[in-house]
Amino acid sequence: MRTIPAPVQNLIDAFARLPGIGPKTASRLTFFLLKAPAETSLDLAQALEAMQTETSHCSECFNITLAGEEKCDICASSTRDPEVICVVEEPLDVLAIERTGAFQGKYHVLQGVLSPIEGIGPDQIKVFPLLERLKSGQVREVIIATNPSMEGDATALYLQQRISQMGIKVTRLARGLPVGGDIEYADQSTLQRALSYRQEME
Amino acid sequence: MRTIPAPVQNLIDAFARLPGIGPKTASRLTFFLLKAPAETSLDLAQALEAMQTETSHCSECFNITLAGEEKCDICASSTRDPEVICVVEEPLDVLAIERTGAFQGKYHVLQGVLSPIEGIGPDQIKVFPLLERLKSGQVREVIIATNPSMEGDATALYLQQRISQMGIKVTRLARGLPVGGDIEYADQSTLQRALSYRQEME
Repeated sequence: MRTIPAPVQNLIDAFARLPGIGPKTASRLTFFLLKAPAETSLDLAQALEAMQTETSHCSECFNITLAGEEKCDICASSTRDPEVICVVEEPLDVLAIERTGAFQGKYHVLQGVLSPIEGIGPDQIKVFPLLERLKSGQVREVIIATNPSMEGDATALYLQQRISQMGIKVTRLARGLPVGGDIEYADQSTLQRALSYRQEME
Repeated sequence: MRTIPAPVQNLIDAFARLPGIGPKTASRLTFFLLKAPAETSLDLAQALEAMQTETSHCSECFNITLAGEEKCDICASSTRDPEVICVVEEPLDVLAIERTGAFQGKYHVLQGVLSPIEGIGPDQIKVFPLLERLKSGQVREVIIATNPSMEGDATALYLQQRISQMGIKVTRLARGLPVGGDIEYADQSTLQRALSYRQEME
């Protein structure tokens, strides 16, 4: 016997397509919205549509920006150092670095990483626009802030080879023990890196 | 520096209003949708709107039904036993019981439980429509399937007092050890119930 009306089942299915949301969570969310005031659903629906229609990508760094604005706030800012570019995988990484307040340069969002297994080469991500930006000669340092994963490392290596040829300094985020971490529980490869890249105390 | 465009932040906020979704999950979902094809967001938006406009409640049992249909599939069915009514808290409970295939009667969805602390009395949930349904004299048994929680128990007791006055048999879902459970790990009150309501072996 069909017991879930189609519109309810459709919403469960739509939620279940999101990452980290299984069928159980999807139906819990759906039944929550059924009980909640209609605005809760309608606000979410409107926010979803608005995000698709009202956002775009910065023509320079490929971070997210408002539709109609050619450059993002950071690229348009005159207070950010245009000589240092931090290369990240995703817009979320920009947010994480901005939250530290420790970086005053500009960004470049690759929108992915190189992954031969998944067939993602330099053409599929924003590598060539980065190399193009560097040709201006204005940039003196590129900080590579891809994730410390296999793909992130491979992408970093590829970029380092291409960029150092241009006579630009290439650096990478430091590897080592996380702050608040415990040596006893550190994984072997983190500890290895922490040893080889040990820093002199001043 | 503002780094998240307003339409993106609005979607993060809208997701974070859902139960079980904190700010971190909300931004993960949002940035997933930013990268995914636009249809993923638009389908979800449409499903949300459709659920609000295309569903309604069954006039008899208060389960969810398609807008425009006065009765739900179960109430409209001629193969379901109208003499037994199973009283549940929420539409999701109907689904759980239907999945067992062990119940052939009809349902009544209270749309909540009595909770004096939260100010929810019999007027706030669908108690009186239930008592009204029972006046037909057609029903011979009411199975109370509220949750085994404090509020669920209080609601069951209240209903039992009202319904048994009408000369109708009132039963409750059995309490005891869950199938596949382990006596060693059963909580004290479950084990107590399992002992007092021990069942004769045939």
